[in-house]
Amino acid sequence: MTAPLLVRVARREPVERTPVWFMRQAGRSLPEYRAIRQRHSFFEVAGTPELCAQVTLQPVVRHDVDAAVLFADIMSPVLGMGIGVELVEGVGPVVAQPIASRADVDRLSTTEPQQEILDAIGIVRRELAPEKALIGFCGGPFTVAGYLVEGKPSRDFAKTKALMYREPDTWHALLDVLAEQFSRYVAAQVAAGADVIQLFDSWVGALSPRDYEEFVAPYSARILAAVDAPTIHFGTGATEELLQAIARTGGDVVGVDWRLPLTSPPDDRAVQGNLDPAVLLGPWERIEDAALDVLDAARDRSHIFNLGQGVLPATDPGVLTQLTQLVQERTVEARV
Amino acid sequence: MTAPLLVRVARREPVERTPVWFMRQAGRSLPEYRAIRQRHSFFEVAGTPELCAQVTLQPVVRHDVDAAVLFADIMSPVLGMGIGVELVEGVGPVVAQPIASRADVDRLSTTEPQQEILDAIGIVRRELAPEKALIGFCGGPFTVAGYLVEGKPSRDFAKTKALMYREPDTWHALLDVLAEQFSRYVAAQVAAGADVIQLFDSWVGALSPRDYEEFVAPYSARILAAVDAPTIHFGTGATEELLQAIARTGGDVVGVDWRLPLTSPPDDRAVQGNLDPAVLLGPWERIEDAALDVLDAARDRSHIFNLGQGVLPATDPGVLTQLTQLVQERTVEARV
Repeated sequence: MTAPLLVRVARREPVERTPVWFMRQAGRSLPEYRAIRQRHSFFEVAGTPELCAQVTLQPVVRHDVDAAVLFADIMSPVLGMGIGVELVEGVGPVVAQPIASRADVDRLSTTEPQQEILDAIGIVRRELAPEKALIGFCGGPFTVAGYLVEGKPSRDFAKTKALMYREPDTWHALLDVLAEQFSRYVAAQVAAGADVIQLFDSWVGALSPRDYEEFVAPYSARILAAVDAPTIHFGTGATEELLQAIARTGGDVVGVDWRLPLTSPPDDRAVQGNLDPAVLLGPWERIEDAALDVLDAARDRSHIFNLGQGVLPATDPGVLTQLTQLVQERTVEARV
Repeated sequence: MTAPLLVRVARREPVERTPVWFMRQAGRSLPEYRAIRQRHSFFEVAGTPELCAQVTLQPVVRHDVDAAVLFADIMSPVLGMGIGVELVEGVGPVVAQPIASRADVDRLSTTEPQQEILDAIGIVRRELAPEKALIGFCGGPFTVAGYLVEGKPSRDFAKTKALMYREPDTWHALLDVLAEQFSRYVAAQVAAGADVIQLFDSWVGALSPRDYEEFVAPYSARILAAVDAPTIHFGTGATEELLQAIARTGGDVVGVDWRLPLTSPPDDRAVQGNLDPAVLLGPWERIEDAALDVLDAARDRSHIFNLGQGVLPATDPGVLTQLTQLVQERTVEARV
C-alpha cells in the first residue's frame, strides 16, 4: 500500500503534488468546533476519544487538507505527572504551583500515555482516507519546561533562564523527566496509528543558539529518536543559526516560520511552511501572491505547505479552504 | 573638544576602549528609582524636567556607564497627539481607544515636542561629564503603531497586520503622521543636547523582511534622516535577513540582540550589543564568560557594549556595576 502523500514527502520521495495542512487547524475558529466547546472544556474534548477524533477530523472534512493533526495541547502529556495545569482563555496554560526547585522536580513522576488520546488516534486513523496522514504531536521540551517554571506564557522566560544558569542540575533533571515522558508519549502515538510526529518547540526562539545546544538539544534529540516514523521539527522565532542547530538535533522535516527563507534547512531535509498566518487576514490577492511565492521558493525541495505558525483565531475558515485548493491545484499543474 | 567616547565609536573612529551602557538602565529595578516612583507616576517623572534628569543620571552615578539614556517611554511622543495612553504595570502601554479606521488616523495631530523632555535633556547634558554621551531615544514606528492598533502589547500583532493588508492607505497615513511627529521629536532632542539618538523598534521582528520593507522601512528612514547626530538603530527578534534590511534603512550603529552574531551588521557600521539580559540572572562566572565572548566577537569592529535587549526587572544592580567595570578594564588592557 502506498504511504500517505505527506509521509512520502517527509521521506523526500518524488510525489504527485505538494501536501498541505495548517498548524492549529483543529479547534480555534471553526464553528463546528465551537459548537462542541459550548458543552465541553478543552481537556474534556481532548480526553474523550470520540470527541477528540471528531475535532481532529473536522478540518479534513471541511478543507480537504492532506493531514489531520491530533487535537491536543502541548501540556497534555504533563497532566498526569503531578502538576495542575489549566488552559486559561486568552492567556494559555497556567500552572498552579510552578517548578522552582530540585524538590519540585523530584516530585514529578512519569506516567503511561493517556489511553483516551491513543484511542482517539485509532479512531482517526480508521476514519481517515489512506492517502491522508495523521500527524501526532508533542510540545518541545523548552516550551513545556518554560511554562512549568514561569507558571504561564512569558515574553522573556527570565525565570526559566535564571533556573538554567543558577541551578543547571535542577534544569537537567526537569528536562530529563520531560524527555522520558514525551518519548513514551510519541512512541505510543505511533503505535496507535500516527503516521508522523511533529515536535513543536514554540518558544525556543527565546534562546541563543549556544544555550539551545547546552540546555535543550539533547532532550529534543532523545524525543525525536523515540519516534519510529517520520518527524517534523519546528521552533518559532529561530534565527538562521538556531534553525541549523534545530535541524542538527533531528527531524526528517524542518519547519520554518515566516521570518526565515523556506530553504534555510539543510538540503538533506524536507521543509514545512512558511506563510505568515497574519497574511490570511488580508485580501485574497495578497494571500494568493504570498502562497505562490512560498510554492516558488520550495520548487526544488520536498515541501509540505503550511503556515509559519498556528492559524490565528480571527482567520476566516473559508480562506483556509480556498488556500488548500490553490496549493493542491497549482502544484499538480506545475508537475504536468 | 573631544566628542564623548560613545560618539566616536558610532563614527567608527579609533578609540581607547569599548564604551558600555545598558538599554533600560534608567528606572526599573534601581532602588533609588523606586523611591522616586513611590511618590510619582511614570509619566509624572518623565514629564518633570528635574525628576526625569535625576532618573536619567542615576545609572551613570551608580555604575559609571559611558552613556546616560533619556528616561522616557516609547509612547511619550504620542501623548499629545490626541490619544489616551496609560502604562499598566506588568502589561505595558494600554490605549483607551485603539486606532481602527482612517477616521481614527485623521483625528491624530502632530504637536511640538514636550518642552519638559527637552528641558530634562538640557539638565542632563550640563551635569554629565563631557566624555560621557547622552543618548536620546525614540520608539520605532512599527512598535508604536502596533500598540496604537492593538491597544496593548501583542504576541502576533494580528490586528496590526490585518490593518496593513486590508487598508494599506490607512496604515500608511498612520505611519506618515507618526514619522512626522517622531522626526520633530528626535531633531528637538539633538537641538536640546542629545549626542546620539537610538531608534528602538522592539517588535519589528514580528514582520517578514518583505513586509518590513513595504510597511515600515520608509518611515524609519525618515526619522533617522531627521537626526543631525549619530544614530543607533535597533530591532528585537530580527533574523539575518531582517537585520540587513534594518541596516539598509539607516543607523550609524546597528543593534544586535542575543540571538544573532554580533558581527551580522554590514562592515560599514558600528555594532551594539549583545549579551542575553537573562544571563545576568545567573552566576558571575557565566556572566563573565558570556561578556568576554561578546568582546571577543567584536574585536575587529567599532563596538558599543550592551545587552541584547533591556535590563530585566529582576537584575541585581550590583551585577551591572561589576559588568561595567569588567568591560571598561578588559578593553583598555586589550589595547595596551
